Amino acid sequence: MRRLLVSLILCVPTLCTAADLPSWNDGDTRTAILEWVAAVTDEAGPDFIPVAERIAVLDNDGTSWCERPAYGSTAFQVHLARSLAAEGKIDPEAMPFKAWFADDRDALRAYGYSKSYVELNAAFAGMPSAAYRDSARAWLDRIRHSRFDTRLTELYYIPMVELKDLLQANDFQVWIVTGAAQDFVRSYIEGAFGIPPERVIGTWTVPVYGEDTPDPTMVRSEVQTYNGHENKPAHIEMRIGRRPVFAAGNSNNDQAMCRWTVTGPRRGLAIWIHHDDDLREYAYDRSTDTIAGLVNDHPGAWHVSMKNDWTVLFAHELK
Amino acid sequence: MRRLLVSLILCVPTLCTAADLPSWNDGDTRTAILEWVAAVTDEAGPDFIPVAERIAVLDNDGTSWCERPAYGSTAFQVHLARSLAAEGKIDPEAMPFKAWFADDRDALRAYGYSKSYVELNAAFAGMPSAAYRDSARAWLDRIRHSRFDTRLTELYYIPMVELKDLLQANDFQVWIVTGAAQDFVRSYIEGAFGIPPERVIGTWTVPVYGEDTPDPTMVRSEVQTYNGHENKPAHIEMRIGRRPVFAAGNSNNDQAMCRWTVTGPRRGLAIWIHHDDDLREYAYDRSTDTIAGLVNDHPGAWHVSMKNDWTVLFAHELK
Repeated sequence: MRRLLVSLILCVPTLCTAADLPSWNDGDTRTAILEWVAAVTDEAGPDFIPVAERIAVLDNDGTSWCERPAYGSTAFQVHLARSLAAEGKIDPEAMPFKAWFADDRDALRAYGYSKSYVELNAAFAGMPSAAYRDSARAWLDRIRHSRFDTRLTELYYIPMVELKDLLQANDFQVWIVTGAAQDFVRSYIEGAFGIPPERVIGTWTVPVYGEDTPDPTMVRSEVQTYNGHENKPAHIEMRIGRRPVFAAGNSNNDQAMCRWTVTGPRRGLAIWIHHDDDLREYAYDRSTDTIAGLVNDHPGAWHVSMKNDWTVLFAHELK
Repeated sequence: MRRLLVSLILCVPTLCTAADLPSWNDGDTRTAILEWVAAVTDEAGPDFIPVAERIAVLDNDGTSWCERPAYGSTAFQVHLARSLAAEGKIDPEAMPFKAWFADDRDALRAYGYSKSYVELNAAFAGMPSAAYRDSARAWLDRIRHSRFDTRLTELYYIPMVELKDLLQANDFQVWIVTGAAQDFVRSYIEGAFGIPPERVIGTWTVPVYGEDTPDPTMVRSEVQTYNGHENKPAHIEMRIGRRPVFAAGNSNNDQAMCRWTVTGPRRGLAIWIHHDDDLREYAYDRSTDTIAGLVNDHPGAWHVSMKNDWTVLFAHELK
C-alpha cells in the first residue's frame, strides 16, 4: 500500500506506473530513483531535463550482469586465444598466454595485469571483425555458467533490466560504458539487454579497412583504447558529446564516470551496486570506501545492496 | 503526373508520399533513391532491411552543406587560433599559423597540408571542451558567408535536408561522418541539420578528464584521430558497429565509405554529389574519375548533379 501510494504521488507527471521497478524492495534507493525520474521528466518542474540530454550510462560487468567467477569478455578471449594456440598462431608457453591458459592469477599479477589484458586483446589482430563477433556468439551459445548452469546472457540482473526499461520508457538514451572488449559485448547485448551496438562504449580496437580484394575487408588491429577509470568520462564526451545525467557502476573503474554524472549542471543520479549476496550471487564487495566519499558528498549518489534492495536477481530464480 | 505515378507505385508499402524529395528533379537518381527506400522498407520484399540495420552515413562538407570558399571548421579554428595568438599563447610568425593567418595555401602545401591541419587542431589542447563549443557557436552566430550573406548554418542543401528527412521517416539512423573537427560540427548541427552530437563522427580529439578541482574538468588534448579516407569505414565500424546501407559523399575522402556501403550483404545505395553549378553555388568538381569506377562497377552507386538534379540548393533562394 505504501509503495502504491508513493508511486501514485511520484508518477503523476510521467507515464510511469505502480509497476515500475517491481523487483526492487521498497526503500530509500528505489524511492530516490523513482522520485528523480519523475522530477527530471516533469516539464513544469525545476529539475526538468530535455529529452535530448537524457543520457544514461551503465557499466556492464558487475553492474548490469554477473561478472563472477570470470569476466565474460576475458573468458571468451582466453578461449579464442586457446584456439589460435591450437592452430600454432600463439605460443602457449609464452607469457601472458601461459598464465591466461592456466588461470594463474598470481602469474598474471606478476607480469602486470594491464599488460596481460592488452596483449590478450591484441592477439586477435588480423582477424576479420565479423569472424570475431561470430566466434563470440558461438561461444556464448555453447557455454554455461559454472554455478548457475545458464547461458551467460541470461545473467543480466532483473532489477537492472527493469531500471533500463524505466529509463528508456522515459526517453532516456541508455548506453553501456564498460572496460570489457567492445566487440565482444556488442556481439550479444542487443538480444540479451536491448542495447544496440552503437550504444556500447568498451575497450575498443580500431579496425583496418582494406580494398586489396574484390570485396573490401574489415579486420582487427592491435591498436586499443582502454575504457576504464578517467577514460570512461573522457570517452563518453568523445563518443556521445553530452554529459550523462544517470550513471550506474560497481567498481573503481566507474568512480570517475559517476562523479562526472552527479556534478553536472543538470540534476544527476548515480547508483552503486554492492555485491553482498552470497546466497543468490557472490559476496565480494570491497569498494564501499571508494564510493563512500561520493555518496556522502553528493545527494545524487545512492548505494544499492543486492541483498536488501533486490527481490530477485536472475531469471532462473523465477522458474 | 509522371512523378506522382512513380511515387504512387513506389510508395505503396511505405509511409512515403508524393512529396518525397520535392526539390529533386525527376530523373534517374531521384527515382533510384525512392525505389531503393521503398524496396528496403518492404517487409515482404527480397531487399528488406530490418530497422536496426538501417544505418545511413552522410559526409558533411560539400555533401550536406556548402564547403566553399573555406571549410567551416577550418575557418573557425583559424579564427580561434588568431585569438590565442592575440593572447600570446600562439606565435603568429611560426608555421603553420603564419600561413593559416595569411590564408597562404602555397605555404600550407609546402609545409604539408595534413601536418598543418593536425597542428591547427592541436593548438586548442588544454581548452575546456565546453568553451571550445561555446566559442564555435558564438562565431557561427556572428559571421556571414562572403558570397551568400547568410549564416553558414543556413547553407545546408535543401535537397539533402529532404533526403535526410526521408531516411529518418523510414526509420534510418542518419549519421554524419566527416573529416572536419568533430566538436565544431557537434556545436551546431543539431539545430542546423537535425543530427544529435552522438551521431557525428569527425576528426576527434580525446579529451582529458580531471578531478583536481572541486568540479571535475573536461579539457581538449592534442591526441587526434583523423577521420578521412579508409579511416571513415574503420571508424564507422568502431563507433557504430554496423555496416551502413546508405552513404553520401563528394570527395576522395568519401570513396572508401561509399564502397564499403554498396558492397555489403544488404542492398546498399551510395550517392555522389557533383559541384557543377557555378550560378547557384560553385563549379569545382574534380572527382568524377574517382567515383566513376564505383558507379560503373556497381548498380547501387549514383551520381548527383547539383545543376541538373536539384531544383533549389539553399533556403535563401526561396526568399
